[in-house]
Amino acid sequence: MKYSQLFGKTSKSVATDSKFVSHQLLTKGGFIAESSAGRYFFLPLGWRVHDKIKKIIKEEMDKVGGQEMITPTLHPLELWQETNRTNTVGFELMTVQDRRGAKFALGGTAEEMFVDVVRKFQLSYKDLPFNIYQFSNKFRDELRARGGLLRVREFIMKDAYSFDKDAATFKATYQQMEKTYTAIFNRCGLSTQVVAADNGYIGGEFCHEFQVEHPDGEGTFYVSEDGTYCAHEDVASNFLDLVNPDEPIQDMRVIDQPEWVKTMEDNIKHYGKDKRFFLKNVVYRSTQGDIIIVVIRGDLDVNKTKLEKVLNLTGQLDDATVGDLTAIGTQPGYVHSWGHQFAQPKKSIQGDRDCQVIYVADLSLKTVHNFIGGQKEATTDSVNVVYGRDFQHQIEADVAMAQEKLPDPTGKSKLIKKNGIEVGNIFQLGTHYSSKMKGAEYIDENGQPVPYYMGCYGIGLGRTLAAIVETHHDDKGIIWPENVAPFKYHLISLPGGEKTAQKIYEQLLAKDQEVLWDDRDLSAGQKFADADLIGCPIRLVCSKKTGDQVEVKRRSETESSMIDVDQGIDVDQGSPSSSVIK
Amino acid sequence: MKYSQLFGKTSKSVATDSKFVSHQLLTKGGFIAESSAGRYFFLPLGWRVHDKIKKIIKEEMDKVGGQEMITPTLHPLELWQETNRTNTVGFELMTVQDRRGAKFALGGTAEEMFVDVVRKFQLSYKDLPFNIYQFSNKFRDELRARGGLLRVREFIMKDAYSFDKDAATFKATYQQMEKTYTAIFNRCGLSTQVVAADNGYIGGEFCHEFQVEHPDGEGTFYVSEDGTYCAHEDVASNFLDLVNPDEPIQDMRVIDQPEWVKTMEDNIKHYGKDKRFFLKNVVYRSTQGDIIIVVIRGDLDVNKTKLEKVLNLTGQLDDATVGDLTAIGTQPGYVHSWGHQFAQPKKSIQGDRDCQVIYVADLSLKTVHNFIGGQKEATTDSVNVVYGRDFQHQIEADVAMAQEKLPDPTGKSKLIKKNGIEVGNIFQLGTHYSSKMKGAEYIDENGQPVPYYMGCYGIGLGRTLAAIVETHHDDKGIIWPENVAPFKYHLISLPGGEKTAQKIYEQLLAKDQEVLWDDRDLSAGQKFADADLIGCPIRLVCSKKTGDQVEVKRRSETESSMIDVDQGIDVDQGSPSSSVIK
Repeated sequence: MKYSQLFGKTSKSVATDSKFVSHQLLTKGGFIAESSAGRYFFLPLGWRVHDKIKKIIKEEMDKVGGQEMITPTLHPLELWQETNRTNTVGFELMTVQDRRGAKFALGGTAEEMFVDVVRKFQLSYKDLPFNIYQFSNKFRDELRARGGLLRVREFIMKDAYSFDKDAATFKATYQQMEKTYTAIFNRCGLSTQVVAADNGYIGGEFCHEFQVEHPDGEGTFYVSEDGTYCAHEDVASNFLDLVNPDEPIQDMRVIDQPEWVKTMEDNIKHYGKDKRFFLKNVVYRSTQGDIIIVVIRGDLDVNKTKLEKVLNLTGQLDDATVGDLTAIGTQPGYVHSWGHQFAQPKKSIQGDRDCQVIYVADLSLKTVHNFIGGQKEATTDSVNVVYGRDFQHQIEADVAMAQEKLPDPTGKSKLIKKNGIEVGNIFQLGTHYSSKMKGAEYIDENGQPVPYYMGCYGIGLGRTLAAIVETHHDDKGIIWPENVAPFKYHLISLPGGEKTAQKIYEQLLAKDQEVLWDDRDLSAGQKFADADLIGCPIRLVCSKKTGDQVEVKRRSETESSMIDVDQGIDVDQGSPSSSVIK
Repeated sequence: MKYSQLFGKTSKSVATDSKFVSHQLLTKGGFIAESSAGRYFFLPLGWRVHDKIKKIIKEEMDKVGGQEMITPTLHPLELWQETNRTNTVGFELMTVQDRRGAKFALGGTAEEMFVDVVRKFQLSYKDLPFNIYQFSNKFRDELRARGGLLRVREFIMKDAYSFDKDAATFKATYQQMEKTYTAIFNRCGLSTQVVAADNGYIGGEFCHEFQVEHPDGEGTFYVSEDGTYCAHEDVASNFLDLVNPDEPIQDMRVIDQPEWVKTMEDNIKHYGKDKRFFLKNVVYRSTQGDIIIVVIRGDLDVNKTKLEKVLNLTGQLDDATVGDLTAIGTQPGYVHSWGHQFAQPKKSIQGDRDCQVIYVADLSLKTVHNFIGGQKEATTDSVNVVYGRDFQHQIEADVAMAQEKLPDPTGKSKLIKKNGIEVGNIFQLGTHYSSKMKGAEYIDENGQPVPYYMGCYGIGLGRTLAAIVETHHDDKGIIWPENVAPFKYHLISLPGGEKTAQKIYEQLLAKDQEVLWDDRDLSAGQKFADADLIGCPIRLVCSKKTGDQVEVKRRSETESSMIDVDQGIDVDQGSPSSSVIK
């Protein structure tokens, strides 16, 4: 197509407060434009890229038997009530009412809708397994939506739902989808880490995120140096060696503490021992008003997600305030590792019981003999505290944040901390939805109704597009991988090169090649800058100087070469030096 | 694909109260399933057809320079307020609010959104014209949604918006789109009538609907026998010959009327003259409380749409009640063609003025000398009433419903009344939106800002799909035109034919041919019935009987033929008798 006729040209003056280079380059390059915060127009150039990503996903999904379909955008709210998701979804659900009073959810995901359409059919075990998917708009009522396509309020997601007989056949389906996802992202030019993640209400091993490593990515995960372990920070853990197994266990003593010893650093200096030898107490308050005190080894931090899961209080813990500490008779810096109680009885928010102080012992407490700390007074300290002898808590669990440089759970290799952009996820649903929704069953070999065993699999297309830009650019602009480039060729005609350009343009179109011809009456500098910004893989330049030849340069390289126009342009996938004339 | 693995199989027992065969066949055939009233799932089979229609539209749009893009589903409500469409749209607008309090419209059409994205760019005359389009969900809060895909509350529309410099270049754009639309529908197997329609607020000649003729279609339009005229009933009109030009004009008289003469039929019998010679008075009440009396020739009916347009009261007229007639001192059957007034002054709804009786004279009054009628009393009648002599009204206009068998506006050919399904429309917008929205201008050759001259162009994909089924089926099922068929081949294996079927299946897949293989363990009768219901163009049957051959039958024909499998299946577009083995 001719650039003069394209709607959505480059714009140098676009100012954005986003730290993300993809936001800036996609806006400046004429790929996207903001409608309202977190909602974007895809301009013709951006939509071509989006469409190529969509085609790749569709091809790979269909290759393994996926069947594309579509569900309505407005989901009857009754379906979300049937699974109690109107209350429990992790994203804010948008709802709308029509003039007859019927209520709908603006779909954030579509598990209920897919179960609802499947249960309309009387399925037998012979009809399973199958995997149905759609490309459809998803809505998230995010409070903050910044960063261009990386965090939005509306986006197109490929969401797939698999229906299996049981966990055994599901496992094969799930593993197949893992392979498919890796293939999809590879074809898009993305190298993804398959990161074990938390699937919340199900548990089990089947939940993975596909992360593109990126220093500013919102996702944090840990990989082992030997590459055998990769897990999201919500679930990652370390193998913890015994710190001082050979040190004799001594009697606990309360000793005087010099007045200057206040902080952890002071303690380290005073006792000559590292952080690991100190008890750390971290305090939270639940929405019901209970106080949770986590006792953990001094060098470790509490992972709130793990803690909430252990307590079955997901999303319900906040950091304790000074007032909370006062209520249990203490103050910041003087929380004791055992024994706190509410000074006065206090009713829970629901009012049906008294609030409690709940202690949680992190498993790290078992790795040290003779801890220091845990005394309530300013002028004394406890030493030689031994977990299991001097104190012990009913709840013992791994609630520690994984740390890099410590060993992975096997103990064989050390962890490295990474940040990434989550571009996809695959998820075991089991019978979570099908057991809650009436009639969501197939008839098994014995004539008995059995709930479908399900999985779901999502890819955010806009975020994938942004992730490609984040990992494929230089200071001049985008460098599109050829599979997803808006056009393969960016043809530039300079004065005296118009006729040659016309010839090349027609030649390429006749061969069904995608070419963007910058036919405008602008300077060479402006055209080159736009070509670099837009980032098509191969730039062709015709001018008076090039005559009957055309200058060929890859966006990803600096060297150019010349090709005789009459021999036909057909640049292969290699470097320009290996350009072949076919 | 193998039918055993397809999600969404045929279902004989589906009951639907719809009179539309497309609703029944698409549901029974496993193409669609209802989610809530007016919102449908497209199952994998139906989605394949939808996708083919989409591809055809995209190809034809791109062929003439259309550029696909996408706008967000949620439109900032401010944009609709900017053009005052929150109050004036002809469909009920659904709105939604996010948790920050921002309000959005669920787009019913997207004029404001497209103007909004275009005005973000500083365009010059060199950037025009262009035509940008999207395939996106549209929402209509219809009170009644019945008839399957023919009237829905949510659907995918291709909506295109053209931006031109002025009316002159727009005309070419518009005519190009008319050709493109005809080509699109032809490729879908639809024969469409291009029907001149009412574009409401703009006027002028540039608004057309694409109607597929169908006895149960919601659209009514008139075509002339010679094919030169085609217009929607909202705008269609007749040429009205003078009825009795040679009859001498006589003096108006009030005469006694026999008591048995009450109805129009009684009058015709009594006077020995046809309907045309009688004055007819039709009474409406506006939402403000005014009474409108239309005086029209006895053989004609009032077209409320035309009347509302003449009075600039679109959507504001209701039939008058007995109470309304009492208020102006009359009763049903005794309305006079002139002279009614409100008996008591009555305030308008807004309260700022008194209500009025407004008379409208249809132009047909000028075609008859010596009318009968128009007297207020039960026992008398007026005869020899002459419009222009005995009464005349300030508002004279064509407010008559067109009638078939009467001449078209040229007077050369008679009108035929048709019903149809509206599958698309093209529409002149002019500067209606760009003049209301700030900064919706390009810089012309003289450096002056000028509002864009716009058009818009819509196709409902689901309705197009339903229209294809309405016009391509028999009592056994659908007969898909090959361009939009879910699969070209429907392969049936019967006992003893499995190996041959496998061979054919692989052969066809290797040639990128689309084949649906019914590999289930069912009777020949059940498989044949399903093949007829689903309606793929070519049925292939392998059984013990057919041996190394395959029976080939087109869905549209009854004769079958045999082909040697080893020679390869590749049935061309012709009839089975001309099947070629390539």
